[in-house]
Amino acid sequence: MLEMLTVDRIIKNALEEDLGWGDVTTDSTIPKESAIKGNFIAKEQGIVCGIGVCKRVFEILDNSVVFEIQISDGVMAQKGDIIAKISGPSRSILKGERVSLNLLQRMSGIATAAYKYAEAVQGTSARVVDTRKTMPGLRILDKYSVLTGGCHNHRFNLSDLVLIKDNHIKAAGGITPAVKGAKEKLSHALKIEVEVESLEQLKEALEAGADIVMLDNMSLEMMREAVQLAKGKAILEASGNVALEGLRSVKAIAETGVDIISVGALTHSVSAMDISLRFE
Amino acid sequence: MLEMLTVDRIIKNALEEDLGWGDVTTDSTIPKESAIKGNFIAKEQGIVCGIGVCKRVFEILDNSVVFEIQISDGVMAQKGDIIAKISGPSRSILKGERVSLNLLQRMSGIATAAYKYAEAVQGTSARVVDTRKTMPGLRILDKYSVLTGGCHNHRFNLSDLVLIKDNHIKAAGGITPAVKGAKEKLSHALKIEVEVESLEQLKEALEAGADIVMLDNMSLEMMREAVQLAKGKAILEASGNVALEGLRSVKAIAETGVDIISVGALTHSVSAMDISLRFE
Amino acid sequence: MLEMLTVDRIIKNALEEDLGWGDVTTDSTIPKESAIKGNFIAKEQGIVCGIGVCKRVFEILDNSVVFEIQISDGVMAQKGDIIAKISGPSRSILKGERVSLNLLQRMSGIATAAYKYAEAVQGTSARVVDTRKTMPGLRILDKYSVLTGGCHNHRFNLSDLVLIKDNHIKAAGGITPAVKGAKEKLSHALKIEVEVESLEQLKEALEAGADIVMLDNMSLEMMREAVQLAKGKAILEASGNVALEGLRSVKAIAETGVDIISVGALTHSVSAMDISLRFE
Amino acid sequence: MLEMLTVDRIIKNALEEDLGWGDVTTDSTIPKESAIKGNFIAKEQGIVCGIGVCKRVFEILDNSVVFEIQISDGVMAQKGDIIAKISGPSRSILKGERVSLNLLQRMSGIATAAYKYAEAVQGTSARVVDTRKTMPGLRILDKYSVLTGGCHNHRFNLSDLVLIKDNHIKAAGGITPAVKGAKEKLSHALKIEVEVESLEQLKEALEAGADIVMLDNMSLEMMREAVQLAKGKAILEASGNVALEGLRSVKAIAETGVDIISVGALTHSVSAMDISLRFE
Amino acid sequence: MLEMLTVDRIIKNALEEDLGWGDVTTDSTIPKESAIKGNFIAKEQGIVCGIGVCKRVFEILDNSVVFEIQISDGVMAQKGDIIAKISGPSRSILKGERVSLNLLQRMSGIATAAYKYAEAVQGTSARVVDTRKTMPGLRILDKYSVLTGGCHNHRFNLSDLVLIKDNHIKAAGGITPAVKGAKEKLSHALKIEVEVESLEQLKEALEAGADIVMLDNMSLEMMREAVQLAKGKAILEASGNVALEGLRSVKAIAETGVDIISVGALTHSVSAMDISLRFE
Amino acid sequence: MLEMLTVDRIIKNALEEDLGWGDVTTDSTIPKESAIKGNFIAKEQGIVCGIGVCKRVFEILDNSVVFEIQISDGVMAQKGDIIAKISGPSRSILKGERVSLNLLQRMSGIATAAYKYAEAVQGTSARVVDTRKTMPGLRILDKYSVLTGGCHNHRFNLSDLVLIKDNHIKAAGGITPAVKGAKEKLSHALKIEVEVESLEQLKEALEAGADIVMLDNMSLEMMREAVQLAKGKAILEASGNVALEGLRSVKAIAETGVDIISVGALTHSVSAMDISLRFE
Repeated sequence: MLEMLTVDRIIKNALEEDLGWGDVTTDSTIPKESAIKGNFIAKEQGIVCGIGVCKRVFEILDNSVVFEIQISDGVMAQKGDIIAKISGPSRSILKGERVSLNLLQRMSGIATAAYKYAEAVQGTSARVVDTRKTMPGLRILDKYSVLTGGCHNHRFNLSDLVLIKDNHIKAAGGITPAVKGAKEKLSHALKIEVEVESLEQLKEALEAGADIVMLDNMSLEMMREAVQLAKGKAILEASGNVALEGLRSVKAIAETGVDIISVGALTHSVSAMDISLRFE
Repeated sequence: MLEMLTVDRIIKNALEEDLGWGDVTTDSTIPKESAIKGNFIAKEQGIVCGIGVCKRVFEILDNSVVFEIQISDGVMAQKGDIIAKISGPSRSILKGERVSLNLLQRMSGIATAAYKYAEAVQGTSARVVDTRKTMPGLRILDKYSVLTGGCHNHRFNLSDLVLIKDNHIKAAGGITPAVKGAKEKLSHALKIEVEVESLEQLKEALEAGADIVMLDNMSLEMMREAVQLAKGKAILEASGNVALEGLRSVKAIAETGVDIISVGALTHSVSAMDISLRFE
Repeated sequence: MLEMLTVDRIIKNALEEDLGWGDVTTDSTIPKESAIKGNFIAKEQGIVCGIGVCKRVFEILDNSVVFEIQISDGVMAQKGDIIAKISGPSRSILKGERVSLNLLQRMSGIATAAYKYAEAVQGTSARVVDTRKTMPGLRILDKYSVLTGGCHNHRFNLSDLVLIKDNHIKAAGGITPAVKGAKEKLSHALKIEVEVESLEQLKEALEAGADIVMLDNMSLEMMREAVQLAKGKAILEASGNVALEGLRSVKAIAETGVDIISVGALTHSVSAMDISLRFE
Repeated sequence: MLEMLTVDRIIKNALEEDLGWGDVTTDSTIPKESAIKGNFIAKEQGIVCGIGVCKRVFEILDNSVVFEIQISDGVMAQKGDIIAKISGPSRSILKGERVSLNLLQRMSGIATAAYKYAEAVQGTSARVVDTRKTMPGLRILDKYSVLTGGCHNHRFNLSDLVLIKDNHIKAAGGITPAVKGAKEKLSHALKIEVEVESLEQLKEALEAGADIVMLDNMSLEMMREAVQLAKGKAILEASGNVALEGLRSVKAIAETGVDIISVGALTHSVSAMDISLRFE
Repeated sequence: MLEMLTVDRIIKNALEEDLGWGDVTTDSTIPKESAIKGNFIAKEQGIVCGIGVCKRVFEILDNSVVFEIQISDGVMAQKGDIIAKISGPSRSILKGERVSLNLLQRMSGIATAAYKYAEAVQGTSARVVDTRKTMPGLRILDKYSVLTGGCHNHRFNLSDLVLIKDNHIKAAGGITPAVKGAKEKLSHALKIEVEVESLEQLKEALEAGADIVMLDNMSLEMMREAVQLAKGKAILEASGNVALEGLRSVKAIAETGVDIISVGALTHSVSAMDISLRFE
Repeated sequence: MLEMLTVDRIIKNALEEDLGWGDVTTDSTIPKESAIKGNFIAKEQGIVCGIGVCKRVFEILDNSVVFEIQISDGVMAQKGDIIAKISGPSRSILKGERVSLNLLQRMSGIATAAYKYAEAVQGTSARVVDTRKTMPGLRILDKYSVLTGGCHNHRFNLSDLVLIKDNHIKAAGGITPAVKGAKEKLSHALKIEVEVESLEQLKEALEAGADIVMLDNMSLEMMREAVQLAKGKAILEASGNVALEGLRSVKAIAETGVDIISVGALTHSVSAMDISLRFE
């Protein structure tokens, strides 16, 4: 489901960055004919993500490399599991090792975190979604990883959803004129979301015809009230300081009845999953 | 010290990614003439990094935006500090907000982690350095952030240092022939590093004339012995499972007398520093 | 409201295409110091669009060219009107003439056609919108021109609206499972549109929760019935063989009560507005 | 005969524009394994052009798509004819549908118009040619389409023909010095064309040694005189307000004996040929 | 007269190549505020060429650098002459030094060689021209340098002149059908050149209507005969093993009466002019 | 050993430059089905270099072309030798001819010169190396050619070696603080070279811990003294006005005992090796 023209651009850019004017070590110590076999091994439990991207790194470098996926994107790997087998020319495999791991480890790290958030809200009707707090240039991979881990995506960029915040409201002279202006000028194909800080604002947003309302940093109690007010009229999104654990846990928020919980940390602060390429 | 042609490419790429075909919300709710003022505020303590990159985002978008840096790269900001002041056309400032924050927060997050590692080894003769486990396409920013935080850089990519690892040694028929081959074929301007797993290998590497020797996952005791063997003959680098705390803490490793300690986590698992753009 | 990084890329690409390795005529006959003055003149009535893009062409070529806009985007020019005045180095102005006119004439041509469609539906509640039948690489300009002329935009590309057509329905096993699948997997920020060919299908789409329903090539009568069925439940879009005049005129369709009428011809078959650059 | 490196760049650019970050509809409703068959059908009579470009779109997206050309570039298709058959993965085919049609329909539209102009001058010695009034970034396709339809090409860009117009003449101090200057400074490999508005100017251009003379907006009678003056000395090009029909028809102009008739409308105002992709 | 969009691309590419991820020496030893003054000095006699390109290198790096041209393109510099003065931030000037010199020295080297060839044919009616044997990616600079030195340009690339060689003749079934085919299919704006190896072939080419005939490796005597045959009918170009001195000197060839002498060595084997940047 | 992603970019850029909008001659005279056979022939003795790049040109143009390498990179070809055999579609082969030869001839020219320098120092312990005086955009090819000819590489760019020159020394306040600053701030993976003009400076550089010292334009006698001072402490590089013959010949310099001799002329003033593509 990844748009491959963009992925190819990302990979080529990463390879040129890492190879510089050549892998001096490999080229000076390893004969051209030398072949090698190895396995991508999970060194901790986690959700695999990006294994196709990883494979593509080697296809771009040298299409004689054989890459066999053992664990597909979205599947939980256990510590010690072989995620993929690789074999072929030593030079090509060693040249692609770091770039392929950098991509695979970040993507799996995101998917694994997303999995935990998705688990946490199971049984509720809430979805956990990402934000635009992604790695510049790699958003397509970050968003795919969130989805792979079991969460969902928020808007991709500034052009595919209207999200009216504080400053837009002020400049437009209120929620009602802001929503009205957006509806008049913009495509019918776009949803409109309004960020609110009070129940008063929520009511105004609902009346103005917002499709989605973001409850900015509200207490659990306020969210519950918001749910009562909005049910069936708009999608409610909770936002701000969401964590897996603690008083303001994603589960507690989900139980207020909100539909969407957005979590910036899914992509802005990622722990890479520990994966290594072991040679036989 | 950042190479600006590359930085500009990164910024333009990030802006095109985030803007898509336009910021529909801003364009439909905020008049062209509207102006705004705001402050980039530290919401937690940390080392500022990337504030010049952040400024450049707005220069590229609209050179009528005024951006005044209050806290320079490398300086510790306290919670609540104003890092930079921004004023100018509302539309341009809102369009650049997310991209500028995504860059600034990651870079400051790296610098802050680097600062902690640098602090931890103070008083020893060891340097903490980064690795190639950086964000694909953003290595130049990641490496700069590590430096800004007080740590140092390892090689930038595969072409500026010979780093002979396990597979190279096997393919070349041993450490001695591998080093010899590299010396014969490669530029005298390149240093040669050899990764070793035992003191025997260390001795061989030293005799072969390695400039740097990487001690792969050695115990503290072995590292101390290695220091005795290598002192004055080569730079010693400790690598593998280094953390700020614990038995195998960076401080404990530094106290073995090694020269260099490389830490992948500095860049592969980054916690973004909490910074926001608050409008007046 | 145009995203300028993309516009700049389009202009540079067009200039490199047209200049080749230099304007041999101008460089061999016109002295470097020679200056010139001219006016962009409307040679027929039409809605001006792209005058800022036109100005930008010359800024990119030579920022000493003075370009004064006399008629802004969206305003009707009469035959003989001066749209913009230009003065400066002859060489730079002659080099940019063709590219600037090619862009301005197409954009104004689209805006003028859009104006006529918008006029035609005035007094009804319907909007005329564009499609993805735009010029490859220039969609951002085409969509902006439609808006400038008084019509509206449909989705920008395949990623910002779900539009379930015949083949998707077949593959998913029906409208209901198709909509359900999309809702489950995709972002809550995306609207869902379903293309239907019968009133039965319309009912199914409405029940499945479609936000928009496209009535594919329906008769006026069927559309009227559809409006009765759908009022308040979903946005209705009429599509297929829409023209300014004739039995199936855009006005007749608008009077059925549909909300949206999409017209591919707005961008796939454009008559350039007749505009020329006359020198004094 | 199309330069494929440039064509590939155009196609990739168009695909990235249309796919955005993915075809959300297809990816959420159609299984990866789903296969489809379809036909590109002419919905009106016209000259097919760009079928190889169309095929290339799918090769770039997914080389497992099978694309069989039934009607080659330059051949007249009748309403209902199958131009090409396509089969393969549903996802890939649906993703490429719009881009391939946008290119094919424009190119065939141009070829069809060119065909009519070529027909109109049959039996005369005149050639109808295009201008630089092409779509920015797509000139290579536009010029190829004109040729495919049976007309010919004028210069490709500003560097492959000297075309001395009004402003060049003024700046150089007359036709004679302008032509002399160009001959002295420029490559012997370039032809020189001069635009004239009177028979006096024509004589001067011929004496100065112009290879081609453009008769700007002259009456039919003046053109006939020009032919008498120039026969055998230079190629004569008629330009300005040429149409298929009417007093100033292309046929009437051709019958004056001019060699070349340039028609901007061939590319600046194109009616896309009606072609659709029908699935079985 | 250089097309600056292309030149800018060349310069940026060269700077990124040379700067890598930063000038480590300059950044670590020279304070940001440090300023410097220097002169570009001719260390041997030669024709200056590319001084504007040289200036542009520094504009791109840092527009606060002051660059004053003392000797313009096309002017002979004597050993010791100051070609340009430069002053400004030390860091920016040192970073651009190598790239600016690499471009300036090659371009001046070409111009100086061209000057000698132009000198050698003075008094004859022949022009010395370049070929397509230029540096890949830098043709625009190479061709400009040839012109600056006093020679002229041949075709720029494969699309702006028809040049029918041996293989084309064989495939087309002879010179006459080859020329006829080209005339029929190609633009009237293109000249046609035919390469011939005998006087028989020359006659055929003239009769077929070639605009230019290339005499491939003919003896001086044969060339003289060719001149008799072709005078006034076509431009004659001598090609093959031309040198400044010797039996087959450019002067001797020019005196045969041919119009054009093409010299590949002008650009394929260039001696860089000795120029250095001396700091005060 | 060439980094192919970069090489591909160079080749595509060169092909687009040379093809313009198509090879008008070939497309109009040679049928699509026509096939051809030819040989790349050495027309003088020299070291072949770039034959793989040459092959890649045709792979990119048309992968049905068959290209058989007869003489590999680094091997001496004698006059008349066949370097490679080529066969396949005439059109594709003729289109790639010039670009492939331009690359092959320059690369082989560099390798041949490098071979002569390497020969000249045989029997001594000195290496001849290149500089950054390479062709902008083609450095990767130039450096590879030097290596292929038997010489070695100096640093690739400004980021992979610290090279402290006159201006850095002045700005830093002397050699000692300059070296100290670089060591403190920069990566341990980088070597440090200092350029000196006297033996006093050499001593200071050695004491400061320079890895390499460049003896700038020293007399042979001074170099001999330098060797005495530096032996075993640092690598000594001779630089400035080195030639194959004469008093200051590379051999005479090598015999002083220096380790490295850098020769800018290897790449800044290249004589292309005479190679042609002859068709059967």
